[in-house]
Amino acid sequence: MAKQKKAPRPKAITPKGFRDYFGAEVSERAEMLHRIAGVYHRYGFEALESSAVETVEALGKFLPDVDRPNEGVFAWQESDEDGKGDWMALRYDLTAPLARVYAQHRNDLPTPYRRYAMGPVWRNEKPGPGRYRQFYQCDADTVGTASMAADAEICAMLSDTLETVGIERGDYLVRVNNRKVLNGVLETMGLSDESQRDAVLRTIDKFDKVGEAGVRALLTGGRLDASGAFIDGVGLSDDQAEPVIAFLTSRADDVAKTFDNLRSAVGASTIGAEGIAELEQINELLAAGGYGADRIVIDPSVVRGLGYYTGPVYEAELTFEIFDEKGRKRQFGSVAGGGRYDDLVKRFTGQAVPATGVSIGVDRLLAALREKGRIGGTVAGPVVVTVMDRDRMADYQAMVAELRNAGIRAEVYLGNPKNFGNQLKYADKRNAPVAIIEGGDEKEKGVVQIKDLILGARIAQSATLEEWKERPSQFEVARGDLVARVREILAGQES
Amino acid sequence: MAKQKKAPRPKAITPKGFRDYFGAEVSERAEMLHRIAGVYHRYGFEALESSAVETVEALGKFLPDVDRPNEGVFAWQESDEDGKGDWMALRYDLTAPLARVYAQHRNDLPTPYRRYAMGPVWRNEKPGPGRYRQFYQCDADTVGTASMAADAEICAMLSDTLETVGIERGDYLVRVNNRKVLNGVLETMGLSDESQRDAVLRTIDKFDKVGEAGVRALLTGGRLDASGAFIDGVGLSDDQAEPVIAFLTSRADDVAKTFDNLRSAVGASTIGAEGIAELEQINELLAAGGYGADRIVIDPSVVRGLGYYTGPVYEAELTFEIFDEKGRKRQFGSVAGGGRYDDLVKRFTGQAVPATGVSIGVDRLLAALREKGRIGGTVAGPVVVTVMDRDRMADYQAMVAELRNAGIRAEVYLGNPKNFGNQLKYADKRNAPVAIIEGGDEKEKGVVQIKDLILGARIAQSATLEEWKERPSQFEVARGDLVARVREILAGQES
Repeated sequence: MAKQKKAPRPKAITPKGFRDYFGAEVSERAEMLHRIAGVYHRYGFEALESSAVETVEALGKFLPDVDRPNEGVFAWQESDEDGKGDWMALRYDLTAPLARVYAQHRNDLPTPYRRYAMGPVWRNEKPGPGRYRQFYQCDADTVGTASMAADAEICAMLSDTLETVGIERGDYLVRVNNRKVLNGVLETMGLSDESQRDAVLRTIDKFDKVGEAGVRALLTGGRLDASGAFIDGVGLSDDQAEPVIAFLTSRADDVAKTFDNLRSAVGASTIGAEGIAELEQINELLAAGGYGADRIVIDPSVVRGLGYYTGPVYEAELTFEIFDEKGRKRQFGSVAGGGRYDDLVKRFTGQAVPATGVSIGVDRLLAALREKGRIGGTVAGPVVVTVMDRDRMADYQAMVAELRNAGIRAEVYLGNPKNFGNQLKYADKRNAPVAIIEGGDEKEKGVVQIKDLILGARIAQSATLEEWKERPSQFEVARGDLVARVREILAGQES
Repeated sequence: MAKQKKAPRPKAITPKGFRDYFGAEVSERAEMLHRIAGVYHRYGFEALESSAVETVEALGKFLPDVDRPNEGVFAWQESDEDGKGDWMALRYDLTAPLARVYAQHRNDLPTPYRRYAMGPVWRNEKPGPGRYRQFYQCDADTVGTASMAADAEICAMLSDTLETVGIERGDYLVRVNNRKVLNGVLETMGLSDESQRDAVLRTIDKFDKVGEAGVRALLTGGRLDASGAFIDGVGLSDDQAEPVIAFLTSRADDVAKTFDNLRSAVGASTIGAEGIAELEQINELLAAGGYGADRIVIDPSVVRGLGYYTGPVYEAELTFEIFDEKGRKRQFGSVAGGGRYDDLVKRFTGQAVPATGVSIGVDRLLAALREKGRIGGTVAGPVVVTVMDRDRMADYQAMVAELRNAGIRAEVYLGNPKNFGNQLKYADKRNAPVAIIEGGDEKEKGVVQIKDLILGARIAQSATLEEWKERPSQFEVARGDLVARVREILAGQES
């Protein structure tokens, strides 16, 4: 018999492109999603949690010409006797599952159906710095109505959401555009050639990066990019390019003026006029709800997703400045985007169902809140009850139970209590605000020592000897006053 | 060229064994997990969210003798140029990832490390009625300490958790046992034969189902099961079987008596005495924290997982009765279980790391809360503002914004407003408590109609004509009083 080889130890690592989230990262995200769900709920949206696994067929990523249909998704074949099982895959967003759910349950769901969903999605892509293959999305969509009131509502909800999680008014702007207006512009230009229209769309998408002059150059003869390479232009004449530029730069301080600018950009185009009318409706509905230009604006320079959506497009941008990795100031930028798309369910049922929705970039919004100091990035540590006498664990357990029953985060030290220094090091690692000490002497006298670790750290850093004596960071209290005094200290640390 | 065949429409279905969760199912679970996280936090536990995807190697499901290592897990091979990519899989529980995380990050984590985790896990098993291939787990574990204070703490936390989510004291019991005591019993019996020990362990596991007499029969000569089939016994003599029965039935009303019974069951066994000492320590620590026998008891009849764990084992059982599918009364049973296991991290590092932890059956606990009427199974619907005049959408939008700003869940009807009956049907489907109506007449008079849909439904069901007249379910209020009156009605409906 062959000698059995001992299996090598497995490597303790996540798969490439995946990561773990610890402590504050988890609880701050949970808290943020909890608040967002509250706003969505108030707006009448219903929670939906679809399965993380879908058939590849339903996801719409089925590529008949490759052996394994896992381009972009994580997919596997269901095992069955003859190896002909269905292909399944992890969802890559929350919109494709919504389409499947709506098609499957449309007879039981209300029409229109307002739903929100939050959870991880998975992408089988090359991971990079800060680019993970599993990340959170948080979506809200209204399915089954063509009414602009649905789009306006989502913009208002987005505005409320940002303020509810801690982005102050003035620090963000929801900007609204409409694909139909762009279609009107293209119609007016006489661009009926599909490939040329696509080239214009692709060029417009670069407006954020290259600005007005850049887009003008790219629409006409071309331009040198930052690296010095020459980028070919679309080949339009200056006159032809003008309506596109007029469209992109049509936002004025006065919204009536913006609409005037758009009207002249679309000329006699019917679809263009329709798009403008939709924007006017959205603007009117938002004004009626009290959402003014300090929160939501009509802004035709919003180009993200214009190629994908079929009507209104919206984006939430944070307007404050941050320093990037290279120390340069820049605007924080977009944290959410969405729009109207009408073919959501058609793949399944053959019927077009109008829908509009938004997706919040959960990780970017969390980063923004950290940047603004709205969330701390750390969790308040527990009060640590140290163990001076391992035979009196029950005494320490009683203290910790009292503290917890009073709603105070607390724990007893569970490591080896032999070395007291290690206990204080542990308390430090746990961000403990307070340590409790009860040795034999204290027990006899009916007292405990309370160590204010926050004050202690501050004194150690900066205090003079006089201050040190005046404000001792450790003091003795009667055992019966433990909970009350700890509560006092914690309150003092917070203020 | 071959004629291009049109792709058939994809089927709108979840993969076999997967399901979607709607509305209340999602928000009630989220609310419950939110509360549980609050308790865990108060106990000093830190959140951990590990990636849903692990290498098959790290998960420990790698089976070298099969082509595709997806026995029990959903697994796939990472694609690379030469088809030799790593195998990855969805986690099947939250304990295996904890082992990997702890081994990977042990130098940065505090010792001991208290962590909680909540989220979906996946099992590649044959689905059945009520058995899904994706479900939630909610775990708390303390890694890196052999102290019984860690086990006691988790039992206390489990008790607090159940009360916090809405299971009243008296409706549950946390029962504690210890594998070492059982080992002591086996030692005393002189069972050194591994296969016979395993057979005894397997038999004990049936104690819940077959009771004392059943276990006695199965340990000795065998018994007829409910279907009439004869089940072979382990083949012990009656005398040999006695200590096992004594162990299983050793729980007495007085815990000191329970310990006496255990002592006589383990005889002179050292490991048995060690197990009893551990249970005594746990008992003492819990008593010091105020956790009496009305919440946590030493109960050697807890057998679930005794084969898996290495020390204390605990289980939370709901003690109230429910009716099963067949209308028979039975106890609700277990909603959480756990224990101490010492080989968690050894696979990775070669070093044994003691750990103890609990897993809550999220879906069963939710079912229990529904059974007790603690959660409703429905979400309170939104106030529906109906659309009488589609040109005055802005008016309706203003109303709904006022209601939402007052914290009231509200929406404007976004379907086709032509048929008013459909609007009320929609309100019904949405569980709307109130509908608002403002036609042209009302607008002119500066009033709105408020329809109390809950009262309306009650009246329609049971009221006499007199009551109908006395308590109209629809009334007119000044437009300016809209929010205040709606709030009044909602408060009235709740009481």
